[in-house]
Amino acid sequence: MENSKIRLGIVGYGNLGKAVELNIGKNPDMEIVAIVSRRPFDNPSYPVYDFSQIEKLLGKVDVMIMCGGSSVDLPIQTPMVLKKFCTVDSFDTHAKIPEYFKMLDGIAKASNTLGAVSIGWDPGLFSMARAMFSSFLPDGKEYTFWGKGVSQGHSDAIRRIDGVVNAVQYTIPKEDAIAKVRAGKMPTLSVKDRHLRECFVVAKEGWDRTEIERQIKTMPNYFADYDTVVHFIDEGEFQTNHSKISHGGFVLRSGETDVGAGHLLELSIKLDSNPQFTSSVLLAYARAVNRMHKEGRRGAVTVLDVPLGYLSQESMEKLREKLL
Amino acid sequence: MENSKIRLGIVGYGNLGKAVELNIGKNPDMEIVAIVSRRPFDNPSYPVYDFSQIEKLLGKVDVMIMCGGSSVDLPIQTPMVLKKFCTVDSFDTHAKIPEYFKMLDGIAKASNTLGAVSIGWDPGLFSMARAMFSSFLPDGKEYTFWGKGVSQGHSDAIRRIDGVVNAVQYTIPKEDAIAKVRAGKMPTLSVKDRHLRECFVVAKEGWDRTEIERQIKTMPNYFADYDTVVHFIDEGEFQTNHSKISHGGFVLRSGETDVGAGHLLELSIKLDSNPQFTSSVLLAYARAVNRMHKEGRRGAVTVLDVPLGYLSQESMEKLREKLL
Repeated sequence: MENSKIRLGIVGYGNLGKAVELNIGKNPDMEIVAIVSRRPFDNPSYPVYDFSQIEKLLGKVDVMIMCGGSSVDLPIQTPMVLKKFCTVDSFDTHAKIPEYFKMLDGIAKASNTLGAVSIGWDPGLFSMARAMFSSFLPDGKEYTFWGKGVSQGHSDAIRRIDGVVNAVQYTIPKEDAIAKVRAGKMPTLSVKDRHLRECFVVAKEGWDRTEIERQIKTMPNYFADYDTVVHFIDEGEFQTNHSKISHGGFVLRSGETDVGAGHLLELSIKLDSNPQFTSSVLLAYARAVNRMHKEGRRGAVTVLDVPLGYLSQESMEKLREKLL
Repeated sequence: MENSKIRLGIVGYGNLGKAVELNIGKNPDMEIVAIVSRRPFDNPSYPVYDFSQIEKLLGKVDVMIMCGGSSVDLPIQTPMVLKKFCTVDSFDTHAKIPEYFKMLDGIAKASNTLGAVSIGWDPGLFSMARAMFSSFLPDGKEYTFWGKGVSQGHSDAIRRIDGVVNAVQYTIPKEDAIAKVRAGKMPTLSVKDRHLRECFVVAKEGWDRTEIERQIKTMPNYFADYDTVVHFIDEGEFQTNHSKISHGGFVLRSGETDVGAGHLLELSIKLDSNPQFTSSVLLAYARAVNRMHKEGRRGAVTVLDVPLGYLSQESMEKLREKLL
């Protein structure tokens, strides 16, 4: 049976690539055969290839899991890899997805490959919820809340302030806003109406904390328009309580099928580890990509194109028995 | 543009058929062209056909929405209609779905048609959540809670007791059981550990209420093994507060990607009208069936086979822009 496993390559060995490696054991129908990395690293569990060597993997890898970042890595690496291999990526720069999709769709069709684009939880699972909810309640209003979870960009911004040693920023959905949506009131809520920003900061010994707090709370774009809470803590507490990459969020849709007949649909997720959950979603789509490619599908696809049954380790027949 | 609308027939004019009629306005890309009914009725909004006349609708209907009941109507009507037309049905006798699916798959393939089977919210939206959740967290445990909502079977059972004039039974998910699941404790919970049964009963004047309550609470299969609460009310209160066909429920999956890295995925729905929401889901799948049939798909499909983007009124391109 070993030979019938889906053979995967991991492209990019950061947080996400390592999480794919960690998660492969939960998916016994797949195996990792290679890691593609720009830099060598110690004690690799699988053969490591440089980008210049990927042609050596032709015929040995069914799907490449693209684990680089959306801003710099994926726009360069995915087109390159997709010319030779099927891919799954987690490109998440929302505004650029249509153009990224179009580029990859052209490349894959010309190269006889298939690429699953923007896979993860948002875009990804949350997009799936939006698609189902808006189709089942076309006359309604939709809300996404992110968090509680770490915003890397906001944490970085705080760390650039003079006197800050370490910092983390949590985006927190506002309970009262969620409550209004759940009550079917269909309120109008901006991103800042829906979210609170909570910051945990380690300051340099003797530095003026009031000034650091002022600089955070008045920082344009990042914090100035939001309700922001700042806590000062020491490095020990930081390491103990704030090193997890947890995240979560909600997609809600409230709508009517008739006057007085209101309905509420809600997806919520709570993740201890953002990269680990994302890697798990990528693996499910690698399975689907392998199958759809075998069936003759070429080009780029998103979560909107893939039948849900293709994501599972089980057969459609078994799934009908168990899930319906 | 009128001609490009998807043309629907409603087969069966009960609660669900009327809800489809009510909901068609929320789906401007579709139109109802006929109702198929065993019995004539007054003031129909669309031409009414008897089952013996459905051949007259050949070439005039793209998809038939099967609105009969699962126990008696659908097992007879869907095979008959599917020989001539594409169909969508809400067959929900869980244990019999695989055999029903197989029968319809054979008929549709032989008849060059396509039938979407067991569409609604459970089976349906809940099955979709189970498919996504179990694929994204293969190492985990899943829980379905139904309610708060009316169980027709349990309400009927109470009404058969001597001295009962009217009765309704609500299935209610137990908050403490949900809390344990949400806390990631992966408890073992039977159906009765998860649900409470609350009954509202109108008794005959002067009848022994203690005896009615005893008969309810000791009724085998229906109530004996459950926590059951019985309230006696008068007919006025019954009509005012207990005539809505509301329902709802939760699908939760709790699982790990690594030791100490737990995740919780949850779908919850709250419906003011069970048949109206179900009709809305049926309409979305009628759209998908029409499209997949045009693309050459034949046989039976379930929610596990249909790409999510096919459910929407909007184009894939628009959806990528808006949902990803």
